[in-house]
Formats: sequence, C-alpha cells, structure tokens
Amino acid sequence: MQPRILEVRTRILKENDERARALRAEFLDAGVLVVNVVSSPGSGKTQLLQRTMTILREQGHAVAAIVGDLETDRDAQRLAKSGAPVRQIMTHGCCHLEADMVKQQLTGWGLSELDFLFIENVGNLVCPTSWDLGEGLRVAMLSVTEGEDKPLKYPGLFNTSDMAIVTKMDLAEVCEFDRAAALQSLQQVRPGIQVLETSAKTGQGVDQWIEFLKNRRCEQLAT
Amino acid sequence: MQPRILEVRTRILKENDERARALRAEFLDAGVLVVNVVSSPGSGKTQLLQRTMTILREQGHAVAAIVGDLETDRDAQRLAKSGAPVRQIMTHGCCHLEADMVKQQLTGWGLSELDFLFIENVGNLVCPTSWDLGEGLRVAMLSVTEGEDKPLKYPGLFNTSDMAIVTKMDLAEVCEFDRAAALQSLQQVRPGIQVLETSAKTGQGVDQWIEFLKNRRCEQLAT
Repeated sequence: MQPRILEVRTRILKENDERARALRAEFLDAGVLVVNVVSSPGSGKTQLLQRTMTILREQGHAVAAIVGDLETDRDAQRLAKSGAPVRQIMTHGCCHLEADMVKQQLTGWGLSELDFLFIENVGNLVCPTSWDLGEGLRVAMLSVTEGEDKPLKYPGLFNTSDMAIVTKMDLAEVCEFDRAAALQSLQQVRPGIQVLETSAKTGQGVDQWIEFLKNRRCEQLAT
Repeated sequence: MQPRILEVRTRILKENDERARALRAEFLDAGVLVVNVVSSPGSGKTQLLQRTMTILREQGHAVAAIVGDLETDRDAQRLAKSGAPVRQIMTHGCCHLEADMVKQQLTGWGLSELDFLFIENVGNLVCPTSWDLGEGLRVAMLSVTEGEDKPLKYPGLFNTSDMAIVTKMDLAEVCEFDRAAALQSLQQVRPGIQVLETSAKTGQGVDQWIEFLKNRRCEQLAT
C-alpha cells in the first residue's frame, strides 16, 4: 500500500481501536457476549446464525443481531425469522464494518437485557481483519467448498480470530474436502485454535457451538 | 467511509486509473488480451484458469498469468502446471491488485509474443471493483455454493464486469442451486451481461469459454 494512504489508514484505525475499546467495556458491563462473525461471501454465516439464534431463543436467551452488507437487507430478513430483533447496516461499498457503525445501531436497544449479540460482518476474508468491533469473540468461518488452504492464504483473518468454524460439512464428501489438510492449515496459522465442524443443514456440530457460546458468556460474566 | 480517507483514496484511485490507461494502451499495442478474474475466495478461479491455460496452450496459443494473493504462492504453482509462465504477487495484506503491481511483473516478458495474459485477482468481492488493471476483459466468477443473491449483495463488482462465469456447476444439484434466481440476480445488476455456466471438473462450458476468449481477442486485434 502507498505511504500516504497507509498513514491515514493508521490514524483511522487507531480511532477505531479506541471506539472499539469503549464498546467492549460497555458490552462487558451489560453482560452481553458479542460475537463478530467473519468469512468469505457465501460461506454460510447467515444460515448458521439463523439456526443458532432460533435455538438460543428457544432455550430462553435474549439474542439480537446486526448484519453488514454492501447492499440489500436480505440477510437481516433471514435472521429475523429467528424471532430476534435484527438491524441491517448497508455499507454502500465499504468492505468491512467499523466500531462506529455498530455503535450507531445500538440506540434504543437495552444492552443489559441481551445475552448474545451477533454481528455478521461483510463477506470478506481480508478487510474486516483490522477493524475491532469491541466483540468478545471473533469467529472465522470457512466452508468445505472453499478449499483447505484458505487459512494459509488469508492468515491475518484466521490469526486474529478466537475460533474457527468449518461450515457446510454436509457437502464435505461431494467436495472431496480434505479435513486433515484444512485442520493443519488452521493450526499452522493459529496454533491451538479451537475448531468446530458444523452443518446448519443437518445440525452437525450445532449443539457443540451453542454450548461453546453459553460457556464463553459465563466466563465473560465471571471476569 | 470517513471524509479524510475518502479524499486520499480518490487521489490514489485517480493515479491508478492513469497507470491502468497506459497499461491498456500497451496491451492493445502488443495484441495481448488481458483478462482480470475476480471472485470470492474459493470460487474456483485457479482451477478454471489452469484448465483454460492448458487448453489454449495445446491449441498453440502463448499464454501467461499473474496471480495475486495475500500470502503463499500456491495458486501460481497450480497455474504453472499448465506449462505457461506464471508470476505471483504477494500483497501482504492488501485486499486487491493495483495497476502498478501488474506493471512491475511485466519486466522481461515480451508482451507482443503473448496472446493471452490472465490476472487472477485477490479473492475478494468488494475491493478489486475500483482498481482498473488495464485489462481488456473483466470476468466475475460466482460459484454455485455461494448463493444466488451474491450479485445483488455485491453489485459494484458484477456491474463493472464484462461477463460472469458460474463455476462448480457439477455441485449445482447437491447445493440446490437455483439457476433461474442466480441468472435473474445477474441481469438485475447488469442487464444483458453474458453468463457462462462452467465446471472445471467435468469440463462443462469450458469449450464455450475458450471460444469466447478467442473471439474477444480477435475483436480486440481488429480495433
């Protein structure tokens, strides 16, 4: 990147980090676990979140979601089927969400009444990497259709994530998904990263994911 | 986007446009058709290009490729299996290719000896949109695994592309790909756009794609 644009970006990123820090404190204080979900376009973020939010609500948890997209509110409409409140950020060309965009969406929501807030980022394996949203958990998703080497090719994103979810496991066989190679790529980029293998279609791994989220929230409340 | 960063970006983009214009004149003069291929990560750019380059070489055409990735030269290695010269640009975090990066890779290549030069962009449906590389043809790829609404959600990219290629058609049935909906999304964003449906695995649509490329090169030579 050219020096001039780099300099401005560094300043803007620093401002975003400060805003994200303030948001994080607010989320911790309210006792809500905020999950920033990042992946390529079409990796299955919306489908897994729709199922996740439906189950958490059935179990009595208060959940909400913020969805980022360049255009359209299609994903927000899909997530709203879970019955939870959902807000859409249309970025109109911007390739990532920023802390300020999230902050603006919180108006009128009683954060302390929420248990979980999911933020579905813009589909992009590069740019969301540098933008902290104040989340308590950053999850990188990777579908079996994308190729096992994605973590090696987009190391920044996987390296800044707290966990990885492999999606669309129901297609693993037909896509000749090399599970060992994918897990190895992930460990190479972020040694020790927790990985869940899921299918929003068959339900594989979804219970484990729900348990993980609930435990994570407990840990956050205990700190 | 914030006003300050927007201002710098506008200036940088203008510089890129000027460099791209100069490159385009160079490519036209040399009689090489330059194809800028853009898609999400894991949409199958490399696999389709590997097959395309192998066939074009078998037919006696001189082809070469430039590949952009954040890290790793895995895609360059795969494309080099076609027997064609391939160069890798590692962007180290930058989310798109720029005209200058392409220009730097051309040193030592006799452009006028080439018939086709493929540029495999960084896997990203957002950022490459604004960066002209001087190409004669911009192709947006969309795999059947990604969902039919991608053109609506990333209209900028599809709108600036000369054609669209649907990839991984061999997985269409198992992914319950809604062909009519996908074609409708494409036409809605870019009315009249030519669409090819392909599978690098089964070879579906590949002959058509090769014919399209050869015709396009002839048209370019005739202008």
